[in-house]
Amino acid sequence: MLFRQLIDAQTSTYTYLLADLSTRDAVLIDPVKGQVSLYLKLLEELELRLSHALDTHVHADHVTALGMLRDLTHCRTYIGHEGSVSCSDESLEEGMLIPFGSYGLRVRYTPGHTDDSHCFVLEGAPSKTVFTGDTLLIRGSGRTDFQNGSSSDLYNSLHNILLELDGDTQVYPGHDYQGMTVSSISEERHHNPRLQWSKEEFIRQMDSLELPNPKFIDIAVPANLQCGKS
Amino acid sequence: MLFRQLIDAQTSTYTYLLADLSTRDAVLIDPVKGQVSLYLKLLEELELRLSHALDTHVHADHVTALGMLRDLTHCRTYIGHEGSVSCSDESLEEGMLIPFGSYGLRVRYTPGHTDDSHCFVLEGAPSKTVFTGDTLLIRGSGRTDFQNGSSSDLYNSLHNILLELDGDTQVYPGHDYQGMTVSSISEERHHNPRLQWSKEEFIRQMDSLELPNPKFIDIAVPANLQCGKS
Repeated sequence: MLFRQLIDAQTSTYTYLLADLSTRDAVLIDPVKGQVSLYLKLLEELELRLSHALDTHVHADHVTALGMLRDLTHCRTYIGHEGSVSCSDESLEEGMLIPFGSYGLRVRYTPGHTDDSHCFVLEGAPSKTVFTGDTLLIRGSGRTDFQNGSSSDLYNSLHNILLELDGDTQVYPGHDYQGMTVSSISEERHHNPRLQWSKEEFIRQMDSLELPNPKFIDIAVPANLQCGKS
Repeated sequence: MLFRQLIDAQTSTYTYLLADLSTRDAVLIDPVKGQVSLYLKLLEELELRLSHALDTHVHADHVTALGMLRDLTHCRTYIGHEGSVSCSDESLEEGMLIPFGSYGLRVRYTPGHTDDSHCFVLEGAPSKTVFTGDTLLIRGSGRTDFQNGSSSDLYNSLHNILLELDGDTQVYPGHDYQGMTVSSISEERHHNPRLQWSKEEFIRQMDSLELPNPKFIDIAVPANLQCGKS
């Protein structure tokens, strides 16, 4: 299997390229509109065919490449239906499998950061891996104060879904602002401050963060509701 | 084995943490001074002991953490003697092995970007990996116009040392400005524009780049000649 973590430096967003090197089928997770030419060049150089492109949620901090990639490569695009994005080909649903060659991404519905947040668990590969979007960040978590976020739902998603994965599962998040690229479920269970709190404490802390809005929210959310094509 | 790629966003520098999870011995490659507190926290959380810290070369774009890490952790520090850095514990020499637990980094002398540039080939791990500093970048190479750089030497280092490695060797560079995190020898052999040129063409192209000096050169080089402690 080919695996590449790609970085959009402007928004500290991580995009993931995965591919089956036998069938050449590839998937992109959370692609960024400004990086489309880089993705297309890389797919061409690596002789891969983009089968699927998926967003973990409707992003508030960058514009998605889903619409452009669908137009340019004819890949299928996926996003959670809760976000009311009508332009993706298919809705992400709890438990569905998005296959690429002999591998697949198992979709888990993990609301909380937004009500359309999903995580993807890699299947068929020797190492255990989960792509957590903004649900679980390294030593942190997504915020819950816009886009139908819910601290209570996020607590449940973190504790009842992600922390139920094996401890040696590698955690690849949607962002990192400190320069970390990967963690593990076990590491986050022990060292993520937000995972040490009771549900009541988690809700209290998350609801009192008073963070400023993301820089690009007024551009990104409306654009992303059109798959980045507006 | 534990492997972590860490990013200093200000200078787009990649730092690498490697460790033997049985013995808990760890190595840092190209650590950045401004990130020392992050390294120390991570080492503590992962219950690792920093045995060695090494620089691929005297950097012109960021200040090394070697001196601080030696003071704080008593690790051994290494840098090429050609750079006239007198404060490191040991000089990197072609062919030497820097061990950590049952793994090791084999030192290759690869002058060209600077006259003290070295690459490190991972030994003892199932996957083949080389840390190329600024000698080989993803779809590029280090410049050769300061710090005793030499386009002719860089051509020889790239073609006679790095491209002699197996094609499936993973390439982890010292920087990337496009958001790529890893490549392979085979990929670079085919798709790195600078590796397609004859030696004469390479020298001609490299010697006509006329790049501006790195932002931090006037701070970084004198500081790094003191292991980042000036």
